Amino acid sequence: MNSFGTLIRLTTFGESHGPAMGGILDGMPPRVKIDREALQREVNRRRPGSQQFVSQRREPDKVEILSGLSADGFTLGTPIGFMVRNMDARREDYAEVIRPNHAEYTYLKKYGIHEFSGGGRASARETVSWVIAGAICRQWLEQDGVQIKAEFETCGSVEEAASSGDSIGGIVSCEVLGLAAGYGEPVFDKLHSRLAAAMMSINAAKGFEYGDGFQSASMRGSESLDIPTPDCPQPFSSNHSGGIQGGISNGMPIRFRVAFKPTPTIMQTVETIDAAGNKITLNPRGRHDPCVAIRAVPVVEALTALVLADMKRLMKSL
Amino acid sequence: MNSFGTLIRLTTFGESHGPAMGGILDGMPPRVKIDREALQREVNRRRPGSQQFVSQRREPDKVEILSGLSADGFTLGTPIGFMVRNMDARREDYAEVIRPNHAEYTYLKKYGIHEFSGGGRASARETVSWVIAGAICRQWLEQDGVQIKAEFETCGSVEEAASSGDSIGGIVSCEVLGLAAGYGEPVFDKLHSRLAAAMMSINAAKGFEYGDGFQSASMRGSESLDIPTPDCPQPFSSNHSGGIQGGISNGMPIRFRVAFKPTPTIMQTVETIDAAGNKITLNPRGRHDPCVAIRAVPVVEALTALVLADMKRLMKSL
Amino acid sequence: MNSFGTLIRLTTFGESHGPAMGGILDGMPPRVKIDREALQREVNRRRPGSQQFVSQRREPDKVEILSGLSADGFTLGTPIGFMVRNMDARREDYAEVIRPNHAEYTYLKKYGIHEFSGGGRASARETVSWVIAGAICRQWLEQDGVQIKAEFETCGSVEEAASSGDSIGGIVSCEVLGLAAGYGEPVFDKLHSRLAAAMMSINAAKGFEYGDGFQSASMRGSESLDIPTPDCPQPFSSNHSGGIQGGISNGMPIRFRVAFKPTPTIMQTVETIDAAGNKITLNPRGRHDPCVAIRAVPVVEALTALVLADMKRLMKSL
Amino acid sequence: MNSFGTLIRLTTFGESHGPAMGGILDGMPPRVKIDREALQREVNRRRPGSQQFVSQRREPDKVEILSGLSADGFTLGTPIGFMVRNMDARREDYAEVIRPNHAEYTYLKKYGIHEFSGGGRASARETVSWVIAGAICRQWLEQDGVQIKAEFETCGSVEEAASSGDSIGGIVSCEVLGLAAGYGEPVFDKLHSRLAAAMMSINAAKGFEYGDGFQSASMRGSESLDIPTPDCPQPFSSNHSGGIQGGISNGMPIRFRVAFKPTPTIMQTVETIDAAGNKITLNPRGRHDPCVAIRAVPVVEALTALVLADMKRLMKSL
Repeated sequence: MNSFGTLIRLTTFGESHGPAMGGILDGMPPRVKIDREALQREVNRRRPGSQQFVSQRREPDKVEILSGLSADGFTLGTPIGFMVRNMDARREDYAEVIRPNHAEYTYLKKYGIHEFSGGGRASARETVSWVIAGAICRQWLEQDGVQIKAEFETCGSVEEAASSGDSIGGIVSCEVLGLAAGYGEPVFDKLHSRLAAAMMSINAAKGFEYGDGFQSASMRGSESLDIPTPDCPQPFSSNHSGGIQGGISNGMPIRFRVAFKPTPTIMQTVETIDAAGNKITLNPRGRHDPCVAIRAVPVVEALTALVLADMKRLMKSL
Repeated sequence: MNSFGTLIRLTTFGESHGPAMGGILDGMPPRVKIDREALQREVNRRRPGSQQFVSQRREPDKVEILSGLSADGFTLGTPIGFMVRNMDARREDYAEVIRPNHAEYTYLKKYGIHEFSGGGRASARETVSWVIAGAICRQWLEQDGVQIKAEFETCGSVEEAASSGDSIGGIVSCEVLGLAAGYGEPVFDKLHSRLAAAMMSINAAKGFEYGDGFQSASMRGSESLDIPTPDCPQPFSSNHSGGIQGGISNGMPIRFRVAFKPTPTIMQTVETIDAAGNKITLNPRGRHDPCVAIRAVPVVEALTALVLADMKRLMKSL
Repeated sequence: MNSFGTLIRLTTFGESHGPAMGGILDGMPPRVKIDREALQREVNRRRPGSQQFVSQRREPDKVEILSGLSADGFTLGTPIGFMVRNMDARREDYAEVIRPNHAEYTYLKKYGIHEFSGGGRASARETVSWVIAGAICRQWLEQDGVQIKAEFETCGSVEEAASSGDSIGGIVSCEVLGLAAGYGEPVFDKLHSRLAAAMMSINAAKGFEYGDGFQSASMRGSESLDIPTPDCPQPFSSNHSGGIQGGISNGMPIRFRVAFKPTPTIMQTVETIDAAGNKITLNPRGRHDPCVAIRAVPVVEALTALVLADMKRLMKSL
Repeated sequence: MNSFGTLIRLTTFGESHGPAMGGILDGMPPRVKIDREALQREVNRRRPGSQQFVSQRREPDKVEILSGLSADGFTLGTPIGFMVRNMDARREDYAEVIRPNHAEYTYLKKYGIHEFSGGGRASARETVSWVIAGAICRQWLEQDGVQIKAEFETCGSVEEAASSGDSIGGIVSCEVLGLAAGYGEPVFDKLHSRLAAAMMSINAAKGFEYGDGFQSASMRGSESLDIPTPDCPQPFSSNHSGGIQGGISNGMPIRFRVAFKPTPTIMQTVETIDAAGNKITLNPRGRHDPCVAIRAVPVVEALTALVLADMKRLMKSL
C-alpha cells in the first residue's frame, strides 16, 4: 500500500524522524540518461526554507542513489533505489498529542501504535521521495518534448494569515505541454483518474479538477464542446476537456488544479486531546508553514511525471 | 486496466452495442447473504427513462448472476460473475463520426480501431456493471450499519436547457454514515484518493472534492480545525475534514462531491470530423440526456460501496 | 485472487455445476485477427470424452464471446469477455462428502461454505476458461512464429490401472519454438517462475522443472554449460538451460515438464468423512478419468500462451 | 517487476557491485516484536564463507533498518526499509564477458545495457535482501507456532567436484510445521503455486515439487490417498499431498523440494564470447562455489516465510 503505478512503480519508506526517507523506482526503461544533479535540484526546490513563508527546517536532504544507474549515468533497466538521511531528527520535541486535522487520531485507531515524532509516516517529508522519483521520470518524458509546469495560485492573503499566526489554503494548477495523444487507459485507469489519485495523495489536498472542472457543473453543452480542427496545428478549437477525452490524452495541453486546505498547525492555542483521550491545550511551538500549497508545487510536478511515465510504458506495450 | 480494487476487485467487459455488458467481482468474503432483487432494483434505478429528463433508451437490463452465490443466496467466497444482455443494439445508427467531447478521437488515436456503435466501451452503459458490483458490496457494508447516500445538486436550469436541445452540467454529493474509524491506507491508497480515482472513472466527471474541498483553498487554518470531543457521541466537533484524516476514516460522516460536465450530445447542429479526418456536420438525432449527472447518482453510490468494501477487507487483514 | 497475469490478465469465474464458466481476458492489444473457430477447436480438444481413457461427461461446451472483438474478428483492445454454459449440471449427484485428495476439506476449513456439487470452483472444469483465453493469446504469438506444443508422456500402464478401477499419474512436457530472446523479467518474474506458477495452478499438478530440471541436481557444472555459438543459426551449442537464462528467454527452444498425480477419484471403495466430520464409506460411482494428465495437455499449452503473451507485452513496453 | 507478494510485498533493489543491496517490506502488520539480531543472524547464515565448500567472499553484510520499527523494536505497520552496503565491490575484476549459463547474454539482449561487474542484478547477492525480509516475516509466523526448516540434500560428491575445479548440483528440501489449515488461495494463487514461483526465483533453481512430486507421475491413485482421520491429532493418515489440497494448506506439514543446477562458474577453461560477440576463452579465476544449493538453504526458508506471511494476511482479511 506504499506503492504507486503499474509498470513504472514507486514504493517508498520512511518516517519523518527515523533514520531515512527513500524509495525504489521500478520499471524505468534502460539507457535513459539521468542528470543526477537535476534530482538534487528538484529536492532543493521542495526544501523547507527555500521560499518565503515556508517552514525553516534546514536539513540538507542529500540524495543518495543506491542502484539502477550505470557509472556514466544511464538507467540499467533495474530498480533505482534512493535515500535521503534524516538529519534534523528531534524526537524529544514530540509528545503523544492528537493534533487537530493531523493523522495521529486515525493512525492510532487503525494501527494501535504511532510514531508521534514529526508525524511519522504521515509527515509531508514523505514527499521528498516522490520528488526524486518524479525527477527521474521527468527526464524520460523530456526526451519526447513533454514539459510539466505547476504554479501556485494564492487564494487569500498569506502575509496577513502568517502575521496572526494563522495559516491559509491554496490552489496549485498544473499544465503539461507536448504530450502526444494516447496517454491513459479507458475505464478504470483514465489519465485524469490516475492524476486525481496521485494528487489526492499529497498531504492537505482536498480537491482535484481538470479542464473546466467544477465550473462545468453550471455550463451548457453548447458552451463546452472542443471542436476537432483537422487543418490547424492543434487538434481542437478549444480545451474545455483539459486535454483528456474518454480518459485518454487528446494532444492538447493537460490542465488540472489541486485544492489544498490551510496548514493545520497554527501559532495559536488549540484545544485537543492526548493519545490517552484526555483533554489538553496545545500551545503554539516550533516551525510554521502558513501556506502548505506553496511547497506542494514541485510535488505536483513530480507526481504528474510519475503518472505520465507509467502511462507511457503502458502505451508502448500495445 | 479494466479492473478496480485490491482485495475486492471488479473487472468488467462489454461494448455498448455488443452482446452483453458484465463483470467479475472477485474477493467478496464467504457467507454474506445477498438479496438478488436488490441488485435488480439498483440496476433499475440507473436505467435510462427511470427519471424525468433522462434518455429514453428502454432495454430491460435483466441481471444474470453466473457464479459465486449458493442456491440459498449466500456468497461462496468465489468470484461472482454477472452479465446483462444488450437488447437495444442498433448498430446501423452509428456512422464513423468523431463526436466532440466523446472518446472516439482518443480511442482511435490510441488503438487504431474503434467500435463506433453506441460509443463502444466508452459508453455510459458500462456503469451497469459497476452498479451490480456496488450493490453486492453495499449489502456487505450494511451488515456493519454503513449507509451510502448520493444526491443530485442541480446547478442551472435543466428544463430550460432541455427545451432548447442543450444540456447542462451538475454536481452529485455523497454522504456515508456509520463508517467506523480506520478505513483507508496511508500514503498512496488514502481513502479519498481511492474515492477520487473511482469517481473520476465515471463518464463526464470533471472534479472531485471532499470535506471543505475547493472552498478550503480560501479558508484559514483557525476556521477549519475539527477538534476531538472525547465526551461526545461523535468524535469531532465539526467535519471540515469530510470524515477523513491522513487518508483514513475518523468515524465522522464521509462527505464528498463530484462535478459533471454537460452531456456532450446535444440536439443542435455541430461541426466535427469523421474517422478519416474530413469535416462534417452532425445533425441532432436519437436519444438525449439533458443532464448526465442525474443518472450518475446510483453510480456514485455503487463505486463508493466498491471502494469501502475493498478497504474493509484490507483493514481486516491487519 | 482469480486473476493471472500483469498486462495480459485473465480473470475467471464459475463453479462446475453453476450456470456457467467464463472469464475476462484483459490487455490483448488491438487489431489482432482472431479465428473464433480455433477457440472452439481448442475447447473441444480438452473436452472429456474426446480421447480414449478420459471421462465421458458430454456437455457441448459452446464458446460464447461477449465482447472485445469487432464484427470482422479483430481485437478492439478492450477486454474479451467469454462464457461457456454448464449443460450437464446434476446437483442431486453430490452429497456433502470430503473426498480424499480433493479440495472439499480445505475449502470448508477456509470458507466455512462449499458448493459440493461437482467440486465447485476446484473442479477441473475451470480450465475451459483457461483454454479459451490461451487460444486467443496463442494466435497473437503465432504472428511472430511462436509455436507451443505439449505432449503427454505416460509413466505407467494406463490401461491396466483403468481396468482395475484405479488411476495413474503422468507427465506432460512442453516445448516452445520460435521464441525470440528477451521474454521474461529478472528477479521475481522470471520466465520459468511465471511458467511454474501457471502450471502449478492446474489441478493435480505436483511438480515443475525446466531444462535439465531435477536431473541437474546430480550433474556437474562442466556437463551442463550451454556455450554461445555466434557462427551458428541457433545461439547456443546445447540447451541444458531449457531456453531460459537469468529468467529471460535466450532464443533456444523453451522446454519444461509438469508432473501430475493420479486422479484422486477411483472406482474403488474408500474410507473418508462427511462435512460434519463423521466417518463414511465412499463407493465408486459416476465418471472416471484414469489419467488426468492426458486432459492436461491443451491446458498446459493454453497457460504457456497466456504467460508468453503477458511477457510479450511487458517486453514491448520497454 | 522487482516485487513479490500481494499484501505483504517485498520490493528489492541493488546490483552486486553497486553501492548497496536493499529493499522495502511493505504490509507487515503493526505491533509485531522484531528481534533485530535475528535478522543479522539469518544474513550471516547465507554469507559466503560461513560453511565449508562455499565461496570465500567476506563482506560483513551489516543489516541497516531504515524505517518501520519503533525504538523498542515493534513494527509500526509502515513499510520496513532496509539496506546492506556492498563493501567488496571490485569493478576492475570484470570484463564484458558472456559467461555460459549466466544471465549476461539475456540481459544484454533484453536491455541493451548490463552491469558486468559481479553479475549486476542477476547476482546471487540479491538474496541477501530476501533473507532479511524473510527473517522479519518468520518472526510474525512464529507467533502462531509455525516453524520453517530447509535442508540440503547432497546429490553427488561435492568434495570430488570441488577438487577438480568443477561444480555440482543439489536439492534443498523444506518442511513447514505448525501451519493451520486455510493458507493459500484457490485457482491462481494456490499455496504451492506461490511457493513454486518463489523458489524458481532463486538463482540456479531448475525444478520444484511438493508432496509426492514427480514420483506421483508413476503412482496409482489407490497408493496416494490421504484419508481424513477425525479421531487423531493430525487430520490425515498420510501426507502424499505435502500438506496442500486444492491449493490450500490442510493442517499437515508442508513439504516441498527444489532442484538446483551446478554453479555455472567452474575452475576450468571455458569457450565463450564477449559482449561484442567475439569468441574468447575464459580462464578460471576468482571465487568458487562448488555447490550453490548449499547456500540456498536460508534463502529457501526466507522465501517460504515471505509466501506464508502474505497468505496469512490474505486469510485474515476474509
